[in-house]
Amino acid sequence: MKKNMGSHLRESIAKGRALLVAGAHNGVSAKLVARNGFDAIWASSFEISTSYCVPDASILSMSEFLEASRTMAEVVDIPIIADCDSGYGDAANVFHMTRKFEAAGVAAVCIEDKEFPKTNSFIAGRQNLASVESFTEKLQAAVRGRVSSDLMVIARIEALVSNHGLDEALRRAHAYADAQADVILIHSKSRTPDEVLEFARRWQNRTPLAIIPTTYYGITPEQIQEAGVQIVIYANHAMRSAVRAMDRTLASIIGTRSSQPVEDEIASMKELFDLQGMNELTSMR
Amino acid sequence: MKKNMGSHLRESIAKGRALLVAGAHNGVSAKLVARNGFDAIWASSFEISTSYCVPDASILSMSEFLEASRTMAEVVDIPIIADCDSGYGDAANVFHMTRKFEAAGVAAVCIEDKEFPKTNSFIAGRQNLASVESFTEKLQAAVRGRVSSDLMVIARIEALVSNHGLDEALRRAHAYADAQADVILIHSKSRTPDEVLEFARRWQNRTPLAIIPTTYYGITPEQIQEAGVQIVIYANHAMRSAVRAMDRTLASIIGTRSSQPVEDEIASMKELFDLQGMNELTSMR
Amino acid sequence: MKKNMGSHLRESIAKGRALLVAGAHNGVSAKLVARNGFDAIWASSFEISTSYCVPDASILSMSEFLEASRTMAEVVDIPIIADCDSGYGDAANVFHMTRKFEAAGVAAVCIEDKEFPKTNSFIAGRQNLASVESFTEKLQAAVRGRVSSDLMVIARIEALVSNHGLDEALRRAHAYADAQADVILIHSKSRTPDEVLEFARRWQNRTPLAIIPTTYYGITPEQIQEAGVQIVIYANHAMRSAVRAMDRTLASIIGTRSSQPVEDEIASMKELFDLQGMNELTSMR
Amino acid sequence: MKKNMGSHLRESIAKGRALLVAGAHNGVSAKLVARNGFDAIWASSFEISTSYCVPDASILSMSEFLEASRTMAEVVDIPIIADCDSGYGDAANVFHMTRKFEAAGVAAVCIEDKEFPKTNSFIAGRQNLASVESFTEKLQAAVRGRVSSDLMVIARIEALVSNHGLDEALRRAHAYADAQADVILIHSKSRTPDEVLEFARRWQNRTPLAIIPTTYYGITPEQIQEAGVQIVIYANHAMRSAVRAMDRTLASIIGTRSSQPVEDEIASMKELFDLQGMNELTSMR
Repeated sequence: MKKNMGSHLRESIAKGRALLVAGAHNGVSAKLVARNGFDAIWASSFEISTSYCVPDASILSMSEFLEASRTMAEVVDIPIIADCDSGYGDAANVFHMTRKFEAAGVAAVCIEDKEFPKTNSFIAGRQNLASVESFTEKLQAAVRGRVSSDLMVIARIEALVSNHGLDEALRRAHAYADAQADVILIHSKSRTPDEVLEFARRWQNRTPLAIIPTTYYGITPEQIQEAGVQIVIYANHAMRSAVRAMDRTLASIIGTRSSQPVEDEIASMKELFDLQGMNELTSMR
Repeated sequence: MKKNMGSHLRESIAKGRALLVAGAHNGVSAKLVARNGFDAIWASSFEISTSYCVPDASILSMSEFLEASRTMAEVVDIPIIADCDSGYGDAANVFHMTRKFEAAGVAAVCIEDKEFPKTNSFIAGRQNLASVESFTEKLQAAVRGRVSSDLMVIARIEALVSNHGLDEALRRAHAYADAQADVILIHSKSRTPDEVLEFARRWQNRTPLAIIPTTYYGITPEQIQEAGVQIVIYANHAMRSAVRAMDRTLASIIGTRSSQPVEDEIASMKELFDLQGMNELTSMR
Repeated sequence: MKKNMGSHLRESIAKGRALLVAGAHNGVSAKLVARNGFDAIWASSFEISTSYCVPDASILSMSEFLEASRTMAEVVDIPIIADCDSGYGDAANVFHMTRKFEAAGVAAVCIEDKEFPKTNSFIAGRQNLASVESFTEKLQAAVRGRVSSDLMVIARIEALVSNHGLDEALRRAHAYADAQADVILIHSKSRTPDEVLEFARRWQNRTPLAIIPTTYYGITPEQIQEAGVQIVIYANHAMRSAVRAMDRTLASIIGTRSSQPVEDEIASMKELFDLQGMNELTSMR
Repeated sequence: MKKNMGSHLRESIAKGRALLVAGAHNGVSAKLVARNGFDAIWASSFEISTSYCVPDASILSMSEFLEASRTMAEVVDIPIIADCDSGYGDAANVFHMTRKFEAAGVAAVCIEDKEFPKTNSFIAGRQNLASVESFTEKLQAAVRGRVSSDLMVIARIEALVSNHGLDEALRRAHAYADAQADVILIHSKSRTPDEVLEFARRWQNRTPLAIIPTTYYGITPEQIQEAGVQIVIYANHAMRSAVRAMDRTLASIIGTRSSQPVEDEIASMKELFDLQGMNELTSMR
């Protein structure tokens, strides 16, 4: 039986220092996250949607996200936090979802308090919050659905994103903690960390707190530590760097009708064979 | 009904200039290949295997390769050439395979004359060639299996890779053309283009010729044109640039505990939303 | 390119006699439907959900339903009508869904005017109707999403199932026809065909009409013809007969610790090899 | 964490009485096997291939078989024995395969000593045996590949099927037991149980012995007990009964243009909702 990743993640959090987590979308990006020393992987619905070239807006179905998490779990030895959007439906869907993701080997499932179908939080327009009642039903379904109590359930709060303010965000955080959420993820699209830091101050670590500093990337490690934030998720940078690099490489090749100018800037075949585990294979063939 | 990509690829080849083709492994890499103006996409088994972080050695099953090709076909308007390794079994498997890939919308299937399971051509050691007889059976099965005669069948010759020499490569090329292969792909792991260029000279364009200049990347556009090569496949550069870029970005984040230093070097969220087609979506939601 | 099944289905309907359609859930049940002479296959979400042993309640994701339809399309030469529940989300999801099912080779997609997630129509309790506005948006998205105008879009009305009465059902039918639905499917859970027949009378064939006589199985062919119904869907009988038969066979084996008593009541190995197409295969191997 | 099914199966075998195992191909057939009191499920490649309506001849890829096993493991509480044909390639493939099936929750993987691609054992013609050396490499790869030593590895011997005789079968059985196979499955296409019983006598329970009495269904429970056979697999009867029943039901409907005559012979909607677990769902919705 593989290492229990839920308890592994719980123990890492218990150590007290802020965990660094990075987004991934497939096996190799997950492997690179692990190899670079991150504490966990965010199986990012934004990255996975991008990999399929479809909008991050509940267009892919649960099956594709599940398969991506499973692929990652098979190739890394660090915990995976599955970004499960709004849970792919209602509480009955969340119950089923939790079973499936747990069986796929993830350490945590994260659901957010928006309605299904959701649209990425950084897109202006319709960002309807679910009622506290319907979302706590989902959290309870996740808690009831997990086979092992080690699996962590993370509640992501979209109240700041949808402009409902800090008080509403805190009201929801307490309701979700009451419903046995293991971690609160407070999301923000602000350019500054102020509202997130203020939330952290008022939350007082009732549960561990997670943040995603995509727009407020100026936040410093010291601010994070001082605020007592325990999980920092760099949710989309792997994909964003991959897209930029592929675009440049392809533009160079088409422009010069040759790959020679890019050969030194890209990984070697040997490096990719190493990542694939080709050596272990050839010892068997 | 979508545009017939097989006839589209045939027409592009008929124009006479060398087509530029680049490898991809998922929807977004395919989209970037198309957006940069390449003529076609190589649905690379090396790239797709890397994306799953498993050896490029018939470890993934046909289903994963098929799904990757289908995903690409759904998001681009240029032809896809499916890299089908050695055909996932014998002639009966190739018959079935051809049906499936054609239905997935590819323009061409490419099979190589190695046995199943195969190992990547750049790996030293066992690179057993299939007999000419068994491989021509596979080509015939592909030809018989396609529903439309527009679907192109590409025969990839591994005789140079497995050190059987130019005469054997040519003998096989003629046998495969006799078996109705539409294109011959002559593969080489040499550091120089010499053997490929010599092959081209002796082949005299009996069928269109394709090459993959991974190791002999010093080949010039003029050499390619002079040799009459019609399809040049940059088979793995998208993935190699993505891996290098993700690795550097992740190392920077872990080293500085901040994403600020990399923000200017990676694509913006907006650029990725554009690639995803988020604007079209929000107009419907 | 395979036969265009959308136009095939349109032509069958145009001939005027009532088409007989039967539900299926996988390749072999679809093959049996075709072999027995039915005009089309209903890729039943009830049957497919049962095959996975999960509730028919939007628990499976679109991917599993899509894969089932694709498998069927590969093995039969009659049209497939995909039972797409409430469209797996909102109008943006329906747009995406239509593309995917069309590419999978179905002749028609059918969506119903309930909210997502839906629960099977024969289950008492929450059966909330979508608003006419939101459902016509979905129909328009399906119409806009199809690549070929041959693909049929079927609007299934749940107003009778959710006790809103005949007038509301007709009001919706007209709104859906205005939104370019090709066929209206009027669903009913009544033990008698009265309400469906009355609907047909008042609909006066503005579009072709489809029915699913699961509960009112006493309806006669003459009643159907007289009412001008053009599509009769036996939506679940293949699965219901399979379950009964498997259950009896397994009970006999466990009871007698032998398969001898059931050998004459079950299909032979040879019959299954014939269904699989084993003869064609062995000619290639 | 779910019950460890490998150790569960080991304990059942240790009790000494012959276990009854039945083939299944999807969630609902697995559920019926469990509900009828069988000790384990045979995730039959013959049944699964039939369900896709493709030949049982390595035409489906590993992914479809894996997905079927996973689906079954999610809905039953009895052990699943995965019928993995010849291991989907060579030893490197078997290593990878074992990891995947173990993660999917099966209790045992069974591989047979034929070459890839294989054709069903009851089909006349090419049934080439693998060499003892190459097959023991596969068994060793399975043993090395499993994460938990609880996962059982079953070696299926095709020497009788391919007319190599009893001595060769026994020679292979001992070689496979030396290579740490947990169970020997001796396969036969004889109409009588004689050769299997003789094998059992000479094997003297060096390891537990499994049989598949498809052709020699006249074998009695007493013969099985006396021979010390510990696992009896009714490998295909669920699918064979389903096909016969679906065929008859569909023929009746098309013949009478009504489902009324079959209503009493098929399972009710309520029975299928019960199998699906609809009651648990509606309590959450």
